[in-house]
Amino acid sequence: MSRVSRRRALTLAGVGAAGLAGAAALTQVDNEPELTAAAAATDAVAFTGANQAGIVTPAQDRLHFVAFDVITKDRERLIKLLRDWTAAAARMTAGRDAGTIGAVNGIPEAPPDDTGEAIGLPPSGLTITVGFGPTLFRDAAGKDRFGLAAHLPQALEPLPKFTGDTIDDTISGGDIAIQACANDPQVAVHAIRNLARIGMGAVSVRWSQLGFGRTSSTTTGQATPRNLFGFKDGTRNLKAEETDLLREHLWVQAGDGPDWLTGGSYLVTRKIRMLIETWDRSPLAEQEMIIGRTKGTGAPMGMTGEFDEVDFDSVGADGQPLLATTSHVRLAHPHTNNNARMLRRGYNYVDGSDGLGRLNAGLFFIAYQRDPRKAFIPVQRSLAANDEMNEYVRHVSTGIFACPPGITGTDDFWGSALFGQ
Amino acid sequence: MSRVSRRRALTLAGVGAAGLAGAAALTQVDNEPELTAAAAATDAVAFTGANQAGIVTPAQDRLHFVAFDVITKDRERLIKLLRDWTAAAARMTAGRDAGTIGAVNGIPEAPPDDTGEAIGLPPSGLTITVGFGPTLFRDAAGKDRFGLAAHLPQALEPLPKFTGDTIDDTISGGDIAIQACANDPQVAVHAIRNLARIGMGAVSVRWSQLGFGRTSSTTTGQATPRNLFGFKDGTRNLKAEETDLLREHLWVQAGDGPDWLTGGSYLVTRKIRMLIETWDRSPLAEQEMIIGRTKGTGAPMGMTGEFDEVDFDSVGADGQPLLATTSHVRLAHPHTNNNARMLRRGYNYVDGSDGLGRLNAGLFFIAYQRDPRKAFIPVQRSLAANDEMNEYVRHVSTGIFACPPGITGTDDFWGSALFGQ
Repeated sequence: MSRVSRRRALTLAGVGAAGLAGAAALTQVDNEPELTAAAAATDAVAFTGANQAGIVTPAQDRLHFVAFDVITKDRERLIKLLRDWTAAAARMTAGRDAGTIGAVNGIPEAPPDDTGEAIGLPPSGLTITVGFGPTLFRDAAGKDRFGLAAHLPQALEPLPKFTGDTIDDTISGGDIAIQACANDPQVAVHAIRNLARIGMGAVSVRWSQLGFGRTSSTTTGQATPRNLFGFKDGTRNLKAEETDLLREHLWVQAGDGPDWLTGGSYLVTRKIRMLIETWDRSPLAEQEMIIGRTKGTGAPMGMTGEFDEVDFDSVGADGQPLLATTSHVRLAHPHTNNNARMLRRGYNYVDGSDGLGRLNAGLFFIAYQRDPRKAFIPVQRSLAANDEMNEYVRHVSTGIFACPPGITGTDDFWGSALFGQ
Repeated sequence: MSRVSRRRALTLAGVGAAGLAGAAALTQVDNEPELTAAAAATDAVAFTGANQAGIVTPAQDRLHFVAFDVITKDRERLIKLLRDWTAAAARMTAGRDAGTIGAVNGIPEAPPDDTGEAIGLPPSGLTITVGFGPTLFRDAAGKDRFGLAAHLPQALEPLPKFTGDTIDDTISGGDIAIQACANDPQVAVHAIRNLARIGMGAVSVRWSQLGFGRTSSTTTGQATPRNLFGFKDGTRNLKAEETDLLREHLWVQAGDGPDWLTGGSYLVTRKIRMLIETWDRSPLAEQEMIIGRTKGTGAPMGMTGEFDEVDFDSVGADGQPLLATTSHVRLAHPHTNNNARMLRRGYNYVDGSDGLGRLNAGLFFIAYQRDPRKAFIPVQRSLAANDEMNEYVRHVSTGIFACPPGITGTDDFWGSALFGQ
C-alpha cells in the first residue's frame, strides 16, 4: 500500500502541464510514515522508532552514501533543513515522492519537488540514516559553528591515523552523513539525490559512494554474502535479534555521553580499496591463510562449517597454528580484542578502473557501535599493525559520525534533541 | 540446474586446502553451455545462438562494461585469449565458476581459476557480449597489428566529433569491449573481473563502467524505465519481437561488409553526464518541453498515453507546435531521421560526486545497429546541433565496436571467422 502511494502520485502527476493544479493537491498528502515492517524486498521499512532504521534493518542489496559539508552559517536554516529532510525521508521510505511532482503550490514555474526517476517503483526496503560529524560541532580552528560545541560527545573525535593509512581527505569526513540503503539502486540514488536537491544552498555534497551486494548479514535469516576477495564476510557479525548484545555493543546508553545521543550509535566508514589483480594472482592456500577461513564454505581454518567456533589453539602437523597468528579472523575476533563488537554493514564497490589497467574496487566498510574507542579504533590498530591482508588493501577514506536516535513523533526531526527542540 | 552447477562447485571447493585434489576434478566439467531460456531473473540465458546474447535479450538490471587495450603483439596469444574467454563466458553465463576454484590441475600453488565472489549466486540472467574496436585492426599510425586490416569493416570508423562533445580519450575507445549484464551486480562484476584476470599479460583494462536500472526496454513485456532526468526513456525502442525490423535495422546482413560480421551488429557507447543539479532546478513545464513527453505518464506532448503516436503537427492556442521543434522526442524520432532506428540498451550511472558538490551521474548510452552511418551518426548530428537537452548533458566518452555473430559450436570462439579459424 505504500507502493500505491507512489503509483497514485504517478497518476496525478501524469496529467502533465495541463493538470498542474490537480497535481498540487499532492502537497496535502499526510507526512506521517506508515509503520509497516518489510516482508518482501519491495516493501517499506518503518521510518520511525526508538532507533534509526538502516542499522539493524536486514541489510538491503544496494547503498548510496553521501557526506555533506554544511555551507550555511545560519543555525535556523540548518534546523529547517533537518526538518525538511526528515519529512522527505519519511515520505520516500514509505514509497512516496520526496514532494510534489507537479507544480509546487500551484506555481507551474517552480521546479518539481521530486525528481521523478522513482515514479512507479515500490519502496524497495529503503532506509535513510543520518549521522553528524565532529566538524558540525567545531571547525578545524575549534570554532563553535552552530552553538553545538557543548554537545559534542567525547567519543566523536576524528579517527586516528592508523599504520599504512593512505587517506584521501577529499573523500573523507563531512559535517553530515546520510546512508540510503534499498533493494533497488534507483530508489537509493533517488533518495540521496532528492535530499541533496532539498539541501541546495545549505549543504554541498562533499563525497558520495555507491555500493552493492551485502558484505554483511545483520539478521540470522540472511546468508553471509561474499566480499570482492571472494570470501564470506560477516559470519560473526552482531545480529538484529541479539537484543542484549546490541544494548551492550551497538546503542549509546543513558550516561554514556550527552543525552541527545542516547538511543543513537556511532558510525565509522572506511573505503578500503582492494588490490584485486594482486589478490587474484595469489594461491588459494595463501588466500585462506590470510583470511583464516576456507574460501568455499567459509569455515574457520581447521573446522568444517561456516558457523563453527573459531579454534585459536590447534596446531597442524608442522607445529604451526591452523589459524595463522596473522590471519584476519584471529586479529579481528572479539576474543583477541577485549570482546569488542560492532555491527558491520558494508558494501562492495567498483568505481570503474584506475587508468593503470586495474579495477578500482573494494569494500566500503560501514560499522555501527556504542563507543568507537572500545570497538573500531582498538580493532583497527591491531589489524593495521599485524594483518597479512594489509598487503592487499589500502584504506583511502575515513569518516566518523554520531547518529541520533530514531524519529518518534510527527513533529520530531533528525537531531531535534541536539538542537534542544 | 545451472544454479546447481555453481552450488556444486561450492561444495567441492569447500573442502579447502585439505581437499585440493578433489577440487581439481572440476577441471573436467563440460564447457558446453546449456540452452535454457531465462524465465526468472535468477535463471540462465542461453550463451550460444546465431546472434550474441545481451543484445535483444530482455534488458537486465545491472551493467559492468569494460574496454580493453590489447598489449600482446602475438596474434596466436590473442586467439588463445579469445578462446579462453569464450569458454569462461559459456561457463559463467550458465551459472558456473570461470574455472576451478580449487587447485588448478592439482597444483596448490596456483591461484584459483575463479575469484569466488559469485559462489552460491544463481546465473542471474548474465549475458557477456563482445565487440572489436577499429584500433584492433589498425593502430593510430595505420599499422596492421594482427593481420586483420583487410577485414576492417568500412562502417567501423571512430565516431566523428559532434558539436558540443567534451570527450575524455582516456575513457573512450578500446581494442575489445565486453558488456556484462545481469540482474545481480555481483554477478556482472564477477564476470568482468574474471575475464580481466584471464587476460592478464595479453590485455589491459582501458576503462570500465558500472550501470544500474534499465533505461531502455528491449521486449514488449518490459515497462519503460526512467532515466536520471526522471523521464521514461525507450518507449519507441526496437523490440526483440520485431523480427523484420531487427533484420532491417539491427543485424548486419550478408553483403553489408566482410562476411565475418554477418549476423553481428555495431555497438555505439556514449557516456552522457547529466547536469543533475541544473536540471533539478528547471520547472516541470520546461523539462517536459525539452523532452517532448510528460513526466508522469510519458505520453508524447499533446497525447494522453505513453504509447500514443507522436503528433508532430498539432499546434496549441499560442500557435506553437505542442511538440517543440527542439524537443528530444522530435529530433530523435525515426520520422525526422530517414526512419533510422537503433536498439538502445543504456544504463543509468552514478560515479559518486565530482568534488564540486555535484553528483557525477547520467546515462551510459548503449545502442546496437546494422550500420552506424545510417543510424547513430546522423541522429546524433541532428541532436548535437538542435536538441535543447544539450544544455543539461555532456558527452564525455565515446566508443564504437563491431560485435561478431553468436557462438554456434563447441569449438567456436568470439571472432573465429575474423581470424579465419
